[in-house]
Amino acid sequence: MKVDAVQLTADLIRCPSVTPNEGGALVLLEGHLTAAGFTCARVDRGGISNLFARWGRKGANRSFGFNGHIDVVPVGDRTAWTHDPFGAEVVDGYMYGRGAVDMKSGVAAFVAAAIDFVQTTPPDGAVVLALTGDEEDVAEDGTRALLDWMADTGETMDVCLVGEPTSPEVLGDMMKIGRRGSVTVWFTVVGQQGHAAYPLRALNPMPAIARLMDRLSSHVLDTGTAHFDASSLQVVTIDTGNSATNVIPGQTTATVNVRFNDTHTGAGLVDWMQAEADKVAAEFGVQVSLRSRISGEAFLTPPGALSDMVSRAVQAETGLTPVLSTSGGTSDARFVKSHCPVVEFGLVGKRMHGVDERVEVAQIGQLQAIYARILADYFA
Amino acid sequence: MKVDAVQLTADLIRCPSVTPNEGGALVLLEGHLTAAGFTCARVDRGGISNLFARWGRKGANRSFGFNGHIDVVPVGDRTAWTHDPFGAEVVDGYMYGRGAVDMKSGVAAFVAAAIDFVQTTPPDGAVVLALTGDEEDVAEDGTRALLDWMADTGETMDVCLVGEPTSPEVLGDMMKIGRRGSVTVWFTVVGQQGHAAYPLRALNPMPAIARLMDRLSSHVLDTGTAHFDASSLQVVTIDTGNSATNVIPGQTTATVNVRFNDTHTGAGLVDWMQAEADKVAAEFGVQVSLRSRISGEAFLTPPGALSDMVSRAVQAETGLTPVLSTSGGTSDARFVKSHCPVVEFGLVGKRMHGVDERVEVAQIGQLQAIYARILADYFA
Repeated sequence: MKVDAVQLTADLIRCPSVTPNEGGALVLLEGHLTAAGFTCARVDRGGISNLFARWGRKGANRSFGFNGHIDVVPVGDRTAWTHDPFGAEVVDGYMYGRGAVDMKSGVAAFVAAAIDFVQTTPPDGAVVLALTGDEEDVAEDGTRALLDWMADTGETMDVCLVGEPTSPEVLGDMMKIGRRGSVTVWFTVVGQQGHAAYPLRALNPMPAIARLMDRLSSHVLDTGTAHFDASSLQVVTIDTGNSATNVIPGQTTATVNVRFNDTHTGAGLVDWMQAEADKVAAEFGVQVSLRSRISGEAFLTPPGALSDMVSRAVQAETGLTPVLSTSGGTSDARFVKSHCPVVEFGLVGKRMHGVDERVEVAQIGQLQAIYARILADYFA
Repeated sequence: MKVDAVQLTADLIRCPSVTPNEGGALVLLEGHLTAAGFTCARVDRGGISNLFARWGRKGANRSFGFNGHIDVVPVGDRTAWTHDPFGAEVVDGYMYGRGAVDMKSGVAAFVAAAIDFVQTTPPDGAVVLALTGDEEDVAEDGTRALLDWMADTGETMDVCLVGEPTSPEVLGDMMKIGRRGSVTVWFTVVGQQGHAAYPLRALNPMPAIARLMDRLSSHVLDTGTAHFDASSLQVVTIDTGNSATNVIPGQTTATVNVRFNDTHTGAGLVDWMQAEADKVAAEFGVQVSLRSRISGEAFLTPPGALSDMVSRAVQAETGLTPVLSTSGGTSDARFVKSHCPVVEFGLVGKRMHGVDERVEVAQIGQLQAIYARILADYFA
């Protein structure tokens, strides 16, 4: 009763699981895992569905965990796609669809590897799968909910591999041993609405927001550290919603996202942005308020046994020695690291979140083989 | 068969004539004017309704014209209004409603004055009313259409008074003898969409738009001239529409409106903004495109016979000598000035385009009396 990872990837892509909807993806996985002898539990919280699955005994003296998400970001401009984003069409060796690399193929590869492993060489221990439906959005009720539930019910993972895409160019060229932190700040600038011809009777908030966003985005936060790239600040949107060209708007908003390394903390960055906001408020006489959300602090799993094991498997299958990196976005590893040592390894992530997201079909099998080697190595 | 200007103002406010809808306002006016012996013609073009009305002989050797608009800007945030914007409620001596000052009361005052004047002291000449339904929007098919039609059919005005609100604080403190020009520019900045955690794989258009809007809005265009205030540039909106905090947007837009005096031309300002856009495009490696609309050049009706006549009437009714100004927004005087000498005089415009727009009821009668004196003086 083997599961084919390529077919499973296609089946998952066809589930429209844009956060917070599981779109049938977890139901599908629960079916396969239950049939393969896994004990499954749906861990739902705050409108989010998650799935915990364990093969083997609870409290086994060795347990290996996989973590991954089945939710995907929105399609964006649908007309820019040349393939159905939920169609899983295969053209010239690539399968197209939202989540093709981030990360339905990764989930399919470790689910297929785990099912095959426990059925062909039943290990002395437990294989745990922590599958979440809320990684792309606020992630309050995804892997966090799974870890809370595991703590409450005495479920454990001794080590964990997150199957996110980690390879920048070629499968196997990079793994992640930590992640930058992420903080998002929402700014609102309030002035006084009025007629564009009578600027003295109004107070335009636009010059203040332009100045503030210019200052924030041109500031160099740092130049990187031993294990981390330079921190990066992105203004992701400015919105006013004023359609009348003869009206000075009363207020405007902007959103900034910062990916930061271990020279910063989320709180420190929020304080800095608050100070910059206050400065601009004083310069322009407007009100500038902000609210913030720190979705993760920077963290590191120092190179060691776990990363060595992953490296060996990658080398055996691809001939490449993965670079130990902390680059890229946040992932649920930022939650898992409080539970057990965690590293991340997966496909080439080039097209993730973009138009015409796609995965090279041949690499799904390769990834499954790498995950299978890691399991065999761990339980050897 | 007198027309009561206060009642007519209320009747007009109750017509929901948000551009481009005449909302029954022109039908109402046509009825009153026809009954009073005016020859009326509906001049409709491009989906806009306008009304031409003349008392007296076409080609009379003297003709006095009034110009005004019955269209109004949208209500905006309806919940912020404490009175029905189309209710014309009177509370504590003020009548509330969209268009209460801009400029249904002005239209009501000159229509009532003109009807009363031609009926009580029929002049040796013509009184012309050019009433438009498209002043607040692009104004392509409003007063322009009326003037084109007048040229085609041999209708003329020797002088014209536009009844826009012109008094900043007290009725009678200011009249307009010219207007600044206005140009609107729509900018689009295009970069490359991507994941916020991988800024090197994307090109964020936001820093470029922030820099460009900061530069434009902090640039001093001039400090004013003999008859004109300083030119003013307002960024009226920036919009990106990116709701995902982990996505770098692919493009963003901004709109800028400039009210300029006689040291500038619309084309010159567009050229300057194009040059600034090109500079920012080169600095950030993004594409910046713009389109523009010059809705009027700066112009002046030099002080003389017409402005003196208006001053005398204002002085007689209010005791004030109106300042001769060119401040404020554009008005249809920018079109009329090519047809005949034109000045503008009307109510206190403080609340125009704002929430709870209102007119002091007592001032409607005062304004009517001023218009009546001007007519008597002109035909004396």
